[in-house]
Amino acid sequence: MIGKANTLAATAALLSLASAQTFRRLGSCPTLGCVLPPDQSDFLPGQLFDLRLEVHAPVNGSEAFNNGVPDEEFSVTIKKEGGKAKSIAEFFDVSEPELEKWDFSWYEDLFAQDADTPSVVNVASKIYRKLAIYEPGNYEVTLKYYDDETTTANWVVRPLAMKKRAKNVILFIGDGMTTNMITAARLLAHKSINGKYQSLLQMDQFPVLGHQMTHSIDSFITDSANSASALYSGHKSSVNALGVYADSSPDHFDDPKVETIVELLVRVWDSAWGAVSTAAIADATPIALSGHSRSRYDYAALVDMSLNGLSNYSWTNQGGPDVWFGGGAEQFVPGSESYNGEDYYAKFADAGYEISLNKTSLLELGNSSKALGIFCQSHFPVWLDRNVFTENLESFENSPTGSEEPALDLPGLKEMTLKAIDILHERGGDDGFFLMSEAASIDKQMHALDYDRALGDLLELDDTVRATVAHLAAIGELDNTLVLVTADHGHGFDVFGNADTKYLAEAKGDRQKRRAVGTYDQSGLSHYTEEAGGVSYGTGPNFPVNWDPRYTIASGFGAHPDIREDYRVRRRGPREPTSAMPGFEEDNYFANPEESPDGFIVNGTLPTSESVGVHSLTDVPVFAQGPCQEIFGGVYNNIDVFYKIASCLGLGRPNDRPGGSCGKH
Amino acid sequence: MIGKANTLAATAALLSLASAQTFRRLGSCPTLGCVLPPDQSDFLPGQLFDLRLEVHAPVNGSEAFNNGVPDEEFSVTIKKEGGKAKSIAEFFDVSEPELEKWDFSWYEDLFAQDADTPSVVNVASKIYRKLAIYEPGNYEVTLKYYDDETTTANWVVRPLAMKKRAKNVILFIGDGMTTNMITAARLLAHKSINGKYQSLLQMDQFPVLGHQMTHSIDSFITDSANSASALYSGHKSSVNALGVYADSSPDHFDDPKVETIVELLVRVWDSAWGAVSTAAIADATPIALSGHSRSRYDYAALVDMSLNGLSNYSWTNQGGPDVWFGGGAEQFVPGSESYNGEDYYAKFADAGYEISLNKTSLLELGNSSKALGIFCQSHFPVWLDRNVFTENLESFENSPTGSEEPALDLPGLKEMTLKAIDILHERGGDDGFFLMSEAASIDKQMHALDYDRALGDLLELDDTVRATVAHLAAIGELDNTLVLVTADHGHGFDVFGNADTKYLAEAKGDRQKRRAVGTYDQSGLSHYTEEAGGVSYGTGPNFPVNWDPRYTIASGFGAHPDIREDYRVRRRGPREPTSAMPGFEEDNYFANPEESPDGFIVNGTLPTSESVGVHSLTDVPVFAQGPCQEIFGGVYNNIDVFYKIASCLGLGRPNDRPGGSCGKH
Repeated sequence: MIGKANTLAATAALLSLASAQTFRRLGSCPTLGCVLPPDQSDFLPGQLFDLRLEVHAPVNGSEAFNNGVPDEEFSVTIKKEGGKAKSIAEFFDVSEPELEKWDFSWYEDLFAQDADTPSVVNVASKIYRKLAIYEPGNYEVTLKYYDDETTTANWVVRPLAMKKRAKNVILFIGDGMTTNMITAARLLAHKSINGKYQSLLQMDQFPVLGHQMTHSIDSFITDSANSASALYSGHKSSVNALGVYADSSPDHFDDPKVETIVELLVRVWDSAWGAVSTAAIADATPIALSGHSRSRYDYAALVDMSLNGLSNYSWTNQGGPDVWFGGGAEQFVPGSESYNGEDYYAKFADAGYEISLNKTSLLELGNSSKALGIFCQSHFPVWLDRNVFTENLESFENSPTGSEEPALDLPGLKEMTLKAIDILHERGGDDGFFLMSEAASIDKQMHALDYDRALGDLLELDDTVRATVAHLAAIGELDNTLVLVTADHGHGFDVFGNADTKYLAEAKGDRQKRRAVGTYDQSGLSHYTEEAGGVSYGTGPNFPVNWDPRYTIASGFGAHPDIREDYRVRRRGPREPTSAMPGFEEDNYFANPEESPDGFIVNGTLPTSESVGVHSLTDVPVFAQGPCQEIFGGVYNNIDVFYKIASCLGLGRPNDRPGGSCGKH
Repeated sequence: MIGKANTLAATAALLSLASAQTFRRLGSCPTLGCVLPPDQSDFLPGQLFDLRLEVHAPVNGSEAFNNGVPDEEFSVTIKKEGGKAKSIAEFFDVSEPELEKWDFSWYEDLFAQDADTPSVVNVASKIYRKLAIYEPGNYEVTLKYYDDETTTANWVVRPLAMKKRAKNVILFIGDGMTTNMITAARLLAHKSINGKYQSLLQMDQFPVLGHQMTHSIDSFITDSANSASALYSGHKSSVNALGVYADSSPDHFDDPKVETIVELLVRVWDSAWGAVSTAAIADATPIALSGHSRSRYDYAALVDMSLNGLSNYSWTNQGGPDVWFGGGAEQFVPGSESYNGEDYYAKFADAGYEISLNKTSLLELGNSSKALGIFCQSHFPVWLDRNVFTENLESFENSPTGSEEPALDLPGLKEMTLKAIDILHERGGDDGFFLMSEAASIDKQMHALDYDRALGDLLELDDTVRATVAHLAAIGELDNTLVLVTADHGHGFDVFGNADTKYLAEAKGDRQKRRAVGTYDQSGLSHYTEEAGGVSYGTGPNFPVNWDPRYTIASGFGAHPDIREDYRVRRRGPREPTSAMPGFEEDNYFANPEESPDGFIVNGTLPTSESVGVHSLTDVPVFAQGPCQEIFGGVYNNIDVFYKIASCLGLGRPNDRPGGSCGKH
């Protein structure tokens, strides 16, 4: 059961798979004429992007127009503030693209979905590819269609920033990590005496704190694909899209692209870059550095794209990661989940990569070659199972070779990250490096409502940050390296008290069991930092001394499916909070009756088609230390994280260098 | 019903009233010998405090000791690091106090509480009053008892800080306000286009951001009394205590006190000070500036203490607030809820205060006299009722005169704060001022799970901050004034999607109704910023255009009692989420069947004795601007807010001034 629940395909299925177009014709386009990048977009000077124009003709529904015939004679201009409007072809010195046509359908609301009465839209479109604007300032793109209709997109090209103030950037992403979770993790792992912590999280000790807003273009609740794209490219996108603005065409790979931080870094400075994750390496957060697709679920194609660049359109090529460490062997073992069924271990080896499939060989890797490390199928087993409840590892069928054996020789986020730094440091040399290191299962375990496992992975992240700072100091790179710790979105999690698990188990009836919860003064102190007789996990300082005390934290979520709750750590895990019931249709989830048998039932607020928890709205923290740290204070948009990093790296450039728009290369 | 539900007594009853000693013998004292201030306490140089020693002899229960006879011959010493241990009397040059004796009882756990088998403890105690340490450094206080037992308290006296870097400090407290709520309030009130906000909250624009940890001494979940004390005095306390460390004696007023920021400011610099709140002025957050009691519920005595100082022990006197604006007429109108039944309007008038009981007279107040403004009984009706659903005001029986008429001529937080600034500016003169301004009902409405009303009051706070910054600039004090916006604790609230309220109302059955909730891309965009036909509240920019759109935010809490939910704004309000049921014992709450009749039922996780929501663990944000802003970045303890403010005000002082320990006066 555990092995199956943890496969990549199953995890993907846990996420919302409803049509991305439900309840909005096209998220980035409220009018019948669409400009992508849309109104309010920002750009780094010199950053590559594609420009998509669409004219919509709804055939039926509340917007039905022009008998469903889209205007093919639309025109578009661009004008710099104070300048003259020019055609796109003239302004960018490119040729006029072919007209494209397609149709798509969507539901206007839940009533329409229940009645299965979709609205159909015919589309006429053009796309201009591989453009860049070099002069900072305000621009106005105007689409004219249906004679007298106009859609205007106001764009801002940010200031030039040519000085490289940080040699290296390490961006830690705690996927789904909120301030609330950080507070809870600190409570579990760090001892407090009379309200004063005797030790702190490493991120607590970063000098600068900011908040970033995570909303996507089409929704105030983002997913990890488009929030990662915002962090990496300065362009928000739509749910499930990465490295592109989502257009309405059926092709996932023809959407207008934007250049990412690693594409820029390689093109301008020839820096080394890498990604490390406890997720499958093709999962949204790592793959958004190098992938461009309407759908984050195009795993196999995105892996190929990250190694070989884009094959369908001319684009800049980041050259393949210097280091790529994570899970997701399915996309590398030849078979149904690899690109064209081919062997991507072999493809990477042919491209000069050293390949590592376990911790032993990871630690033996040299630092001079590019390195691919794929340590399991799907996402990593979590820190709690790798370090405390290790017997659970045996139940996974997740060998990186593709066999059904368990992957037992697994590195942690710390080992992967430190090795990645050594390789990137050597390969980047004076050109420096960019590393993204993701603690993926903070999010994945919060989805499963398994907050103990989520907080364990949060503490593993903090332990990794701690080791990274020490390692950077040891290799003389601390002062050259901007270190950021942030998240991509939240989950509505908080601790509200404690639970007397003994009383809860013995009490009769669901209402009486709730009496086990203590609030305010009855919350008392953390029992996770107190030694219990005979309990020793050997996980060292900065982790809980006892994961299963009598008095646990009582925590909850703003939204969840029907669940059972007993507030005890799930020794067998990860948690499977819901199950389908015989006699009901598919996608109708109830509390898993085998979970928390001594606990009580809590009905949820999510649609009963949701088997797990969902993302939330909250701004997420940004902890910064190193060169440029001072620009990361205060509150800003997630895209600003990109512009701050890019300006710190001197990537905002005019078109006046030898080699012109291609920069250094 | 509304009028009654909003009385101060009723609101107090909503909070946890369980014995503060349940499940811990004494929160600050795990051993049988107690030192208060306890181990890990910090002090400002020269800050006044009392020192309580207790020796416990448990009569029965798991800790039974010495046949219940406490050691009356205990001894105590204090030693500066590197120095020699001295008796307390010698070190502080005070006389030896009398021995005190009492007993108390507590329950060791829920099983003991159910069985009504309390543990009884006999106590021997001494208290040394009005002490101060002037030399920065580490100190060790050692209590010896029962021959060979010792309890050691390690204290830190923070560095001297004598330079006054800020003339004025304005401390805004959004009671219960979290980053999650700020994110939600921004979504409701500020229009976003394609993921970019077209305007921002004022606090979003503060240059420096920090997080503070809110834990109290005895619990990781704080209440507003002891968290306010931590912010104002640099000393954490126990749940429900303010301005004191909670000892085990039955007397609420004999507990060891600590000097607060306003007591220090008046004593050292003779600055003016004021408090403004939308709560009753005797509520925890405003009263903790000037009150000292084991129980925040001693409203009447705390009001007297704030005007007249302490009558039972020698202590410094803050001289009475220069400005005191809020609700809570019950403590001023002569009667059962005023101190000794006396007329406190008359008492304040006799002390030279101008008295205002409504907005009209508030705006007509001069700026030279002290001012008391009490505008209603209990807490203020909330912003949403004062500005949008104004018909609800008529149902309150809350006249500040004590009559059962409604209070209709109510100022808002903005009017009170701006008037307070004018008075404090004039009265403080060159000595400057300190103002605390509290948006109290963010917390109170989150308790009621009425998130719309809570977010309305959060937006009123932000509007007040905006107006304050503008007003400070207008009177030439912006560069002299440190402005802080923070909170005292959180509630586990977050937004997780939207709700189609039309579908929800029409769907049949609770499981079908949950289908109305949209997550991720189906969350869509905020409909609160879109004009709906015929809807206009006249509340201006920075507030929602429509409070009752078809597509609302879907939000939830980590913990709540049983409730009904329909995600619509409660036009009749505030929300009463629960009710007792005929045939059940008292304190057994169920979802209020009259609430959200078209909604669905959600059972809670709190004890069924809780009728409302509770506080949560999360760190809360600190936004800073003005002199010393740079010291408010990063993550720190709530007591550090006090030390940062106090050092910015030059209040960390040695004992070398004319007048010695009494500073300027």
